[in-house]
Amino acid sequence: MAKTNAGRFFEDYSLGQVLTHAVPRTVSGGERALYHMLYPARHALYSSDVFAQASGLPASPLDDMAAFHIVFGKTVPDVSLNAVANLGYGEGRFLKPVYPGDTLRSVSEVIGLKQNSNGKSGVVYVRTRGLNQRDETVLEYVRWVMVRKKDLDAPAPETVIPDLAKTVPAADLVIPEGLDFTGYDFDLAGEAHRWGDYEIGEIIDHVDGVTIEEAEHMQATRLWQNTAKVHFDATFRPDGQRLIYGGHVISMARTLSFNGLANAQMVVGLNAGAHANPCFSGDTVKCWSEVLDKAETSAPGVGAIRLRLVATKDGSVGELKGENGKYLPGVLLDLDYWALMPL
Amino acid sequence: MAKTNAGRFFEDYSLGQVLTHAVPRTVSGGERALYHMLYPARHALYSSDVFAQASGLPASPLDDMAAFHIVFGKTVPDVSLNAVANLGYGEGRFLKPVYPGDTLRSVSEVIGLKQNSNGKSGVVYVRTRGLNQRDETVLEYVRWVMVRKKDLDAPAPETVIPDLAKTVPAADLVIPEGLDFTGYDFDLAGEAHRWGDYEIGEIIDHVDGVTIEEAEHMQATRLWQNTAKVHFDATFRPDGQRLIYGGHVISMARTLSFNGLANAQMVVGLNAGAHANPCFSGDTVKCWSEVLDKAETSAPGVGAIRLRLVATKDGSVGELKGENGKYLPGVLLDLDYWALMPL
Amino acid sequence: MAKTNAGRFFEDYSLGQVLTHAVPRTVSGGERALYHMLYPARHALYSSDVFAQASGLPASPLDDMAAFHIVFGKTVPDVSLNAVANLGYGEGRFLKPVYPGDTLRSVSEVIGLKQNSNGKSGVVYVRTRGLNQRDETVLEYVRWVMVRKKDLDAPAPETVIPDLAKTVPAADLVIPEGLDFTGYDFDLAGEAHRWGDYEIGEIIDHVDGVTIEEAEHMQATRLWQNTAKVHFDATFRPDGQRLIYGGHVISMARTLSFNGLANAQMVVGLNAGAHANPCFSGDTVKCWSEVLDKAETSAPGVGAIRLRLVATKDGSVGELKGENGKYLPGVLLDLDYWALMPL
Repeated sequence: MAKTNAGRFFEDYSLGQVLTHAVPRTVSGGERALYHMLYPARHALYSSDVFAQASGLPASPLDDMAAFHIVFGKTVPDVSLNAVANLGYGEGRFLKPVYPGDTLRSVSEVIGLKQNSNGKSGVVYVRTRGLNQRDETVLEYVRWVMVRKKDLDAPAPETVIPDLAKTVPAADLVIPEGLDFTGYDFDLAGEAHRWGDYEIGEIIDHVDGVTIEEAEHMQATRLWQNTAKVHFDATFRPDGQRLIYGGHVISMARTLSFNGLANAQMVVGLNAGAHANPCFSGDTVKCWSEVLDKAETSAPGVGAIRLRLVATKDGSVGELKGENGKYLPGVLLDLDYWALMPL
Repeated sequence: MAKTNAGRFFEDYSLGQVLTHAVPRTVSGGERALYHMLYPARHALYSSDVFAQASGLPASPLDDMAAFHIVFGKTVPDVSLNAVANLGYGEGRFLKPVYPGDTLRSVSEVIGLKQNSNGKSGVVYVRTRGLNQRDETVLEYVRWVMVRKKDLDAPAPETVIPDLAKTVPAADLVIPEGLDFTGYDFDLAGEAHRWGDYEIGEIIDHVDGVTIEEAEHMQATRLWQNTAKVHFDATFRPDGQRLIYGGHVISMARTLSFNGLANAQMVVGLNAGAHANPCFSGDTVKCWSEVLDKAETSAPGVGAIRLRLVATKDGSVGELKGENGKYLPGVLLDLDYWALMPL
Repeated sequence: MAKTNAGRFFEDYSLGQVLTHAVPRTVSGGERALYHMLYPARHALYSSDVFAQASGLPASPLDDMAAFHIVFGKTVPDVSLNAVANLGYGEGRFLKPVYPGDTLRSVSEVIGLKQNSNGKSGVVYVRTRGLNQRDETVLEYVRWVMVRKKDLDAPAPETVIPDLAKTVPAADLVIPEGLDFTGYDFDLAGEAHRWGDYEIGEIIDHVDGVTIEEAEHMQATRLWQNTAKVHFDATFRPDGQRLIYGGHVISMARTLSFNGLANAQMVVGLNAGAHANPCFSGDTVKCWSEVLDKAETSAPGVGAIRLRLVATKDGSVGELKGENGKYLPGVLLDLDYWALMPL
């Protein structure tokens, strides 16, 4: 037993600690094809080399969310193996597209700690960076999780709560080098709606739904080398259910949002995210979006749009929280992100 | 809701209308590997670069049926989102093999229209072409579907029923450039039976069967970016069942037919096709073939064979229609195609 | 029916017979990605080109077990279609890593035959070699299976039982050319335990478990072009269950053993293997390992470790056989192999 990884407990973290996550991963056309098999992914920039090249990129990149899941998956053994809950995301930015042939690895730094008043657990804040084989940061984000203490007598660390931006300012978004939407082909992209057609406050019902199967969410989660037991082992929870990786719901919702947001091509910022309720096999995931903000960018023909993406298991649209301020039981995901769209 | 695609209704089609389908797709070794995971695909030409090169091709192409599904999938949002039924296929030809690295897109032309006597729906005939990044047509076929009217008061269009060939004449089949079966290795291909060993009228029981799972048919259908709700959303039909994409049955049957037709390597013509009965998860698909015709070709060592491929869910062999002329309830698919085989 | 392969029966084998197995296969990044989707595969050498290159290899190879399954799958139509039982493996060696772009085929030689005393079946021993496109042997192993007789009156062959080594001697293990672990990065590999940290007799509980789904084991088995009916057709067995391919349990266990054996990077020898009990969908596979032996190698920084890998469906650890000498009912797999580990 001593040889296996028992995961870190709350008392094992310290401010400024750097965690070098294991198992670098080279991606290929295989991962791209799998993303299309696991999700109803249809954004043209991630489907066609020709479309991507017409947009100024060298080739069609790996879907941003696939890159996110790969970077995230590596952090699980070091950050969330003993997590009680994944509390939130923030300050996420996508800095470089990931292409077939790239090798990704992840590094995290502990940027905040707060022991809970019950003394049994605490909140750990980490800033995670995904790096490619040239040591360029391809994406970064902050995540905070509640982690159990093993030794209840371990002293509480000094409380440090990082001062996180509520949203990534539009000026801080990084546009991929060369991106140019002035020759954008709306027919091939699938919808005619451009940046100017979306209004702040507008709500879009994405209509389509997918009923989740055990085999599929396990395959998706495994593909990102996320090994948290609770997703795979039906004997782990007393109810015999496998909890679905929250990232599976993110990708399902983001790809379903094609229908109405086909031109929200690239994800460049992750402002906030909450997994509102657990998702299980048999749930039918649908989603809706709300336009939260819009901004111009310096790239030709490229606008930024800030979207709230809400995944549900009850098909509701436009409803998020109850009178008590808590998420409604049918809500699975509340994600706030920036995407790039042709002007 | 206004931003999402509600699909075209019968009154939205007009003769000669050209539909530029969205979401071009670059294929890689990933799609090839997935075809081998999703189906019991063993035709050597689609499995081995070395075998393909010994047959005069530059490399092992993507399975013809995978290319067909990719081209077909793109047409769904424009042609069959509001379809009541997929009525038939015809005049299908495979003109160029598709290789990893190719980018496919689809274009359709409306070639026929006929409103039904009930005034509530009509039949739309489209000729669809799949094109690669060099604007070469890689395959083409005609499909006709029954589509609902939304506005029942819309005037009926002039009835035009295209004059379709009952089968593709052997002389019109396009043999891939360079194809040469004179050095064909029957041991590596898996069977000794050559073109001359098959007799018109012969019936082959392919013996093997596969029981279908929800996860698998959804993954296959999604891989081709076919987004018809009825395949994915268990809440869509009153009976809670997900209807299986007919193309999944086509590929399952075609690959199962390896056992007895291992040398029917390339599909070059699609004469006719009917999805006789719906297929659901839990059905066990088996199949049998009937040799319908044979023809010589101009390529060295290459003969053409016309086959009826019948998929069943009851394991029956050789039975197709009842006394009333309707397909028997155990029949899923009746497909009439041309393949190339070593002489 | 005459066109389909009915498989060989015991009387169809003869000593020295060479079986050229069909359907060569070119692998790509697709097969690599799929291995990561189907199994919790995290060994760094098979995940990252950069890590593999730092270890002296040209790129990250296809997982050894994936190569084994591809070679094995090709033998099924010729060796085990009418097999009653897969009795054992031995003398397995991995001689060359397999890289994307390689084309594999398989050849077997019958090296032993023994008719059973009941006259209804017999044991066939074959030595199988997997070859690449340069006709280099990439791996080889001996397998023996019990095969039914079709013609009970066929004369019994002379009994020849090959003299198989109980284990592959460490001196006969082939270390991939160039392999060098002197610069091994234990952080990126995921664990700090090196060759010197493991003691003969030590038992490692790998803790993690995966509950098996029908869709997943069928996909894995199909990916290796293994077409044995019993894995796919729910109507084949009276109990309506699909028997899971033993190789699926091997790969599941080997990849789960990452947790505790993250540095047992390359499999180079297969000493023995037994599928102790059948595995079905719904079983939760866990595993444990026992260190059986250790040896030095001539490669810089590289040690060899001999491991017993036991997969279970009841989570038991350290228990293998009952007082009657038979495998306990919760044991699925007992595999004895050599792996390479940094000193």
